[in-house]
Amino acid sequence: MSQPGTADAARAMFAGDVASRSLGMELVRSAPGSAVVRMRITPEMVNGHGIAHGGYLFLLADSAFAFACNGHGPATVAAGADITFVASARFGDELVATAAERARYGRNGICDVTIRRDRDVIAEFRGRSRIIERTAP
Amino acid sequence: MSQPGTADAARAMFAGDVASRSLGMELVRSAPGSAVVRMRITPEMVNGHGIAHGGYLFLLADSAFAFACNGHGPATVAAGADITFVASARFGDELVATAAERARYGRNGICDVTIRRDRDVIAEFRGRSRIIERTAP
Amino acid sequence: MSQPGTADAARAMFAGDVASRSLGMELVRSAPGSAVVRMRITPEMVNGHGIAHGGYLFLLADSAFAFACNGHGPATVAAGADITFVASARFGDELVATAAERARYGRNGICDVTIRRDRDVIAEFRGRSRIIERTAP
Amino acid sequence: MSQPGTADAARAMFAGDVASRSLGMELVRSAPGSAVVRMRITPEMVNGHGIAHGGYLFLLADSAFAFACNGHGPATVAAGADITFVASARFGDELVATAAERARYGRNGICDVTIRRDRDVIAEFRGRSRIIERTAP
Repeated sequence: MSQPGTADAARAMFAGDVASRSLGMELVRSAPGSAVVRMRITPEMVNGHGIAHGGYLFLLADSAFAFACNGHGPATVAAGADITFVASARFGDELVATAAERARYGRNGICDVTIRRDRDVIAEFRGRSRIIERTAP
Repeated sequence: MSQPGTADAARAMFAGDVASRSLGMELVRSAPGSAVVRMRITPEMVNGHGIAHGGYLFLLADSAFAFACNGHGPATVAAGADITFVASARFGDELVATAAERARYGRNGICDVTIRRDRDVIAEFRGRSRIIERTAP
Repeated sequence: MSQPGTADAARAMFAGDVASRSLGMELVRSAPGSAVVRMRITPEMVNGHGIAHGGYLFLLADSAFAFACNGHGPATVAAGADITFVASARFGDELVATAAERARYGRNGICDVTIRRDRDVIAEFRGRSRIIERTAP
Repeated sequence: MSQPGTADAARAMFAGDVASRSLGMELVRSAPGSAVVRMRITPEMVNGHGIAHGGYLFLLADSAFAFACNGHGPATVAAGADITFVASARFGDELVATAAERARYGRNGICDVTIRRDRDVIAEFRGRSRIIERTAP
């Protein structure tokens, strides 16, 4: 039986998330406050420098962040985020984004996501979340 | 005649930027240190909350940022960026990202991008750029 | 006659702001959504590299940000901020922080602050504000 | 015997850091890539809202960040930082900042600092570091 505050919230969200699924993302694991998402760099994700467009790295991290935050139940959105690009990714690379919540206070939260290719860090992302609705009683 | 440090650098970059063009972005205007890019929200850009995935807003801003920075000539990449989501965008919305450089120092720069739908601000982005090569003498 | 939403709110706030005044800050100008604050780098502000501690640059920007935001009337605090250090400041430098609001939405706002020594940019700050109370009717 | 790349670099830096010492900071522990710094909120650190000025929280985090980064040996400065204010601190509060490096690449690094009062998180800080000199061979 499905309960708010379990990973089912993230699963249900992923099922309806056309943006993440159409990019070939795979929700590897999720729990309230954490998530692991995998994505492979396709030819459409390459920019004018011949490397993966930073926007797709952000997109991957943002999805992992969303699944981690929404795993608690109440609908939660990104208020903002910061990303630092550590290394380039290229066509064919399989990237894994690991999200872990760092703080929750009031309706706000901070959730860090590290994107890796094998052991190499590709990007570090810090998302600022905000709960927009309470679950029904 | 094409010169480094003119908007041609941005045009050439856009021509080779599969990521930006495959999303239907249009480079409206560019000059060294500034750029305007337009993009329409497609069904593939919608997330599990029924609104445009923040990653696509980031992607749009990041592209405008890249065209503005690279308009000076030397190849410049994003070292990182921060985005604040001000309002939601939806399927069919036409968004315009306006990038304006704020500071340049050494090989670094700061470039702000505002995404608007008509007059409404949708997101504020601040990119940190880094020159990775010098133009040939 | 004092009205909420005028620069008097910033003036009153500055009068009670021991932190800002004890560092010798001067509120040069303020209006709803903008402020200019001046501060001189003292020997106590110098760090282990012999330059002004970045924390004091942040402090100056954060004060200008607070006076700009609170100029509207309702008590507003910093939810967070990002600062980029562009150039070093040294003992004796007179710094001027200029704050200008960029967006307001719901109880949130974004306000940018540039710190300059004469014409040179020393730091770029972007603050995220949050209204914590409404003014009495 | 002192070696670059040991905690001695942080100790030596702290000894010369007038800014940190004049605020009563105590370097509790340091190692290459990590540091713990303690500071008590004094009356001079209180702002116009009656709470600790966010600038002093930033200053504390920035110091812990500097000691962690410089523990490797080469002189390292802050290129920038983001701070999120989680809870207020008040006069008399003893705060502890714990810095832990998250990534190092080229001359760049990312270092996270959490400020706590006992177990409560007061602020989350993410610093971007940059090596400005190499140690002598």
